[in-house]
Amino acid sequence: MIRTVVLHKNTLDYVYVKARNKLVLKLETAKGSFQECRLIYWARTESDTRKRKSRKMELQYRDNMLDYYYAEMEFSKTARYTKYFFELIDQEGKRFYYTEYDFTEEYPADGYFEYLYANPGDVLHIPEWARGQVFYQIFPERFRNGDSSNDPAGCAGWGEKPTRENYMGGDLRGILQKLDYIQSLGTDCIYLNPVFKGDFNHKYATTDYYRIDESFGTNEDLKELADECHARGMKIILDGVFNHCGTSFEPFLDVMEHQENSKYKDWFHITSFPAGITHRDYECVGAYKWMPKLCTSNQEVCRFILQVMEYWISYAGIDGWRLDVADEVDPYVWRTARVYLKEKYPDILLVGETWSFGRKMLSGDQMDSVMNYVFRDAMLDFIAYKKIDSVELDERLNHMMAGYYEEYNHAMYNLLDSHDTARFLFSCGEDKNKLKLAAAFQFLMPGAPAVYYGDEIGLTGDNDPDCRRTMPWEEEEQDQELLSWYRRLSEIRHQEPAIRQGSYKTILAEKENNVYGFERSLDNIHIKILINNSEKPAEINLSTGNGAIQKEIPLGEQNYRNFSENGDSLPIKLEPYSVKIIKFEEVKL
Amino acid sequence: MIRTVVLHKNTLDYVYVKARNKLVLKLETAKGSFQECRLIYWARTESDTRKRKSRKMELQYRDNMLDYYYAEMEFSKTARYTKYFFELIDQEGKRFYYTEYDFTEEYPADGYFEYLYANPGDVLHIPEWARGQVFYQIFPERFRNGDSSNDPAGCAGWGEKPTRENYMGGDLRGILQKLDYIQSLGTDCIYLNPVFKGDFNHKYATTDYYRIDESFGTNEDLKELADECHARGMKIILDGVFNHCGTSFEPFLDVMEHQENSKYKDWFHITSFPAGITHRDYECVGAYKWMPKLCTSNQEVCRFILQVMEYWISYAGIDGWRLDVADEVDPYVWRTARVYLKEKYPDILLVGETWSFGRKMLSGDQMDSVMNYVFRDAMLDFIAYKKIDSVELDERLNHMMAGYYEEYNHAMYNLLDSHDTARFLFSCGEDKNKLKLAAAFQFLMPGAPAVYYGDEIGLTGDNDPDCRRTMPWEEEEQDQELLSWYRRLSEIRHQEPAIRQGSYKTILAEKENNVYGFERSLDNIHIKILINNSEKPAEINLSTGNGAIQKEIPLGEQNYRNFSENGDSLPIKLEPYSVKIIKFEEVKL
Repeated sequence: MIRTVVLHKNTLDYVYVKARNKLVLKLETAKGSFQECRLIYWARTESDTRKRKSRKMELQYRDNMLDYYYAEMEFSKTARYTKYFFELIDQEGKRFYYTEYDFTEEYPADGYFEYLYANPGDVLHIPEWARGQVFYQIFPERFRNGDSSNDPAGCAGWGEKPTRENYMGGDLRGILQKLDYIQSLGTDCIYLNPVFKGDFNHKYATTDYYRIDESFGTNEDLKELADECHARGMKIILDGVFNHCGTSFEPFLDVMEHQENSKYKDWFHITSFPAGITHRDYECVGAYKWMPKLCTSNQEVCRFILQVMEYWISYAGIDGWRLDVADEVDPYVWRTARVYLKEKYPDILLVGETWSFGRKMLSGDQMDSVMNYVFRDAMLDFIAYKKIDSVELDERLNHMMAGYYEEYNHAMYNLLDSHDTARFLFSCGEDKNKLKLAAAFQFLMPGAPAVYYGDEIGLTGDNDPDCRRTMPWEEEEQDQELLSWYRRLSEIRHQEPAIRQGSYKTILAEKENNVYGFERSLDNIHIKILINNSEKPAEINLSTGNGAIQKEIPLGEQNYRNFSENGDSLPIKLEPYSVKIIKFEEVKL
Repeated sequence: MIRTVVLHKNTLDYVYVKARNKLVLKLETAKGSFQECRLIYWARTESDTRKRKSRKMELQYRDNMLDYYYAEMEFSKTARYTKYFFELIDQEGKRFYYTEYDFTEEYPADGYFEYLYANPGDVLHIPEWARGQVFYQIFPERFRNGDSSNDPAGCAGWGEKPTRENYMGGDLRGILQKLDYIQSLGTDCIYLNPVFKGDFNHKYATTDYYRIDESFGTNEDLKELADECHARGMKIILDGVFNHCGTSFEPFLDVMEHQENSKYKDWFHITSFPAGITHRDYECVGAYKWMPKLCTSNQEVCRFILQVMEYWISYAGIDGWRLDVADEVDPYVWRTARVYLKEKYPDILLVGETWSFGRKMLSGDQMDSVMNYVFRDAMLDFIAYKKIDSVELDERLNHMMAGYYEEYNHAMYNLLDSHDTARFLFSCGEDKNKLKLAAAFQFLMPGAPAVYYGDEIGLTGDNDPDCRRTMPWEEEEQDQELLSWYRRLSEIRHQEPAIRQGSYKTILAEKENNVYGFERSLDNIHIKILINNSEKPAEINLSTGNGAIQKEIPLGEQNYRNFSENGDSLPIKLEPYSVKIIKFEEVKL
């Protein structure tokens, strides 16, 4: 009964506004069904069918189920009033037409899709600086103790084993002292875990959204840190914890005191009055009574969040927000925040936390990026656990990228680990070769690689609290070779626009083969990356393309190695657990 | 290469919040691939796999490409922190599992979908009164002249041929005089085409959003009309034309006067200064220079729209808005309007105009309903033009309904024609039998049937301006038999909760057969509707189901006819172009 499946809808899943005069359209088809897909479109006022435009769509991604085709529609002025349908040629050469109403062999006379009008507010705008930048994530309590005068009482010694309770004395002054180091990694943007007054060493139970926690320093220290980052050309974003608060947050205290008579009673999800400090009386994060959930559907709460977000942008000049548990907050908060804040500060960045696909937050009206744990899962399964081969990896990565607009893929917060997970190195059984491969994926794929402090010098640790160990600052405690690897990857990303901004294409993924290859392209530059995720050496014949000059971009210190320019196949030898980067420059013939 | 296609994503296309403790999940599969689909779900904190729930999904719709399965997930408290995947059994009995990451024969160990948290603001809320109600659309200039003192100068006589320019003198007083008539059709809600001060007889070029056009009456008249509707248990909604305005709208006049120095210059899409009254200087509706588009992405314009919308709700007590060209307005306007207005007036209705699928506006955050021209297209192609047979009709109707949440299908503004189209009767070549069939679909299918004034008494007319003829009020000018047909259909809708609120299922659709059958069910009541869209009589054997009592709901005046209760097949004879409605009552055995 199955012929095939072809999918396109007039929704933001399938059409988005790249510029007021440019649309991007996506078509999904059952994997392998078609040899060619074309977009046919015309102004709805144009009745002459000979004036219809026909554009070949590009097969950009393929996962385990679907092929994803894309085409752009360009307009001389505002994109509007355009009718379109799709023409598809199957593997036997048979031609089909796909409209809103039909999938047929007859040229369609109606049932066309239509695009109506691109408002200025419909244009996808992600800050340009976010495209392919490098993040460095810092857990402030554990990065560096720069001022012992603000240490919490009973501080443990630097380097002691972290527990859920203990404090080590890290602070903003410490981060200020280490900006040279941070910059030496090619960091474009620092992301700080929570710094506002709050409970616990992680400060995710905020009690005062307008004050830096005294153990981290002062509001002025944050401003100084932001200024110092900016002076070095770096950005800084803060952790906005608006899904929940701490039990000493004043509105919550007010509810505890005045119960149903509190003017803040609708700021939370109180399930029974009188309410005491127990998860049975109000909704929390998980069942964690110390973190009551805010009712973010409440418009007063929404306004409060917007005010806090604006305050720190305006006071300290921060460059944006990483938004904690963003996927549990009423999306209306993010929509209004986006419109309200970006009107005044168009270049701020909004990164949402989510552990799965962030599609709901990424259709232009909420976030600029999300924490890409889906990328991390793929890396763990391919490299750390060897649960999937390179074909499955490829399907997973393609599925991931096909789920987002291209602009989002380049802004995605691509992490290997965080304060909420085991360190990647730990998950690899401390095998640094594996971490190096994963870091290569992170830095060479589209997106914004996000280094969790210490990964780069071999800091390890099991899941929270062990993943929050103090950063060792003595050179002999740091793996300098690993550090060089990270610096070199970051350097390549900054030197090669095709790595930072280019498109992505799979070039090698074979069943039961652990070598994976992909290509990043921009204009006439094609950079091919081969990653051998195996203990065995491998030899690959790379297709070179016509008239292309090839050279290797080494990951060590040596100079570029030029390959022979002859032949259309380039033999590449890969050591076990190694990465090769070959740069091709197309020559206009 | 195609195995099959299975689709589910963690987006609003596939999961919505019916109540804070109830989710609805959709799964799409390539047509005919599976004999059974099941939803497997559990609390993410539950590690015992034996405690997972397994729920059979219901195959609710099938179009030309896909099967659409649905299941609900219920929770004792707030829907949150739930993992799930799908189990599918293909036609050969082979079992498959579908997760975010995989489609496999192995029971999955990870890659699960997850639902995180249902905020109060995430709950789909459509006013209860909108479910299956009957609309009556009035074009005020042509319905009834109730007060000749406000007639425009040079008014044409009632009944003269409408042109784009002429006026006939219809007004609010006229509508007030005919409320008995309107109510006799079972009207639940009147929708008025624009009534604010504006240019042209259609008033779609608004010049003062705060004033009733003087040729229609006064602001007080509108308030009186709303009060009188409410006194009769009817509602009334107005036409909100916020996509564009008239050239005498004050902010536009200000731009014409002060050009680039006008404080309103960003309220419009001015493409070149100095701007005069020509479509070359600003964006318009189409190329119609008398209707400049408002820049609805501008936050001042957004606030202005919200103020106007609130003013008429608060001043006159109107029950909602039909929003003109809603699909070209920045969606942020509708999102803020929805939150802002519904906080104060939770029962107002927002109906968006669109001519295609309104999915973009119907995911809970913008409209409650859209004008369902997709339904009209299906009726035209099946009944008026005979371009499609009942199988294609079925695919079209299923495709349509599968595109919206069930609640939206019941609130959909199902029209056959409007002030913007030829009359359906005209499109049928004046064949009233065909109009009667279409009206039967309109009143017996899920949704809110919307009668365009005069359709019910046989008013005809080609596209605008001819579809805006004056309403004849002499009984002999009205087709009384047709009027009875409409009244009877409306009566059945109001008497039978299964028609007004019940679910929908196709029961008969055969290739090259013009009889179409569907069933509406609520609790133990099943109402089967057979529609013979052919000049030939037909005989159908209806399956009766176990222990069901059957009777016919006649469309004429006679009493219910009871069928024999024996046998499991009921022979039904259908005259050419006729409709049969058989009511089944399941008997609990």
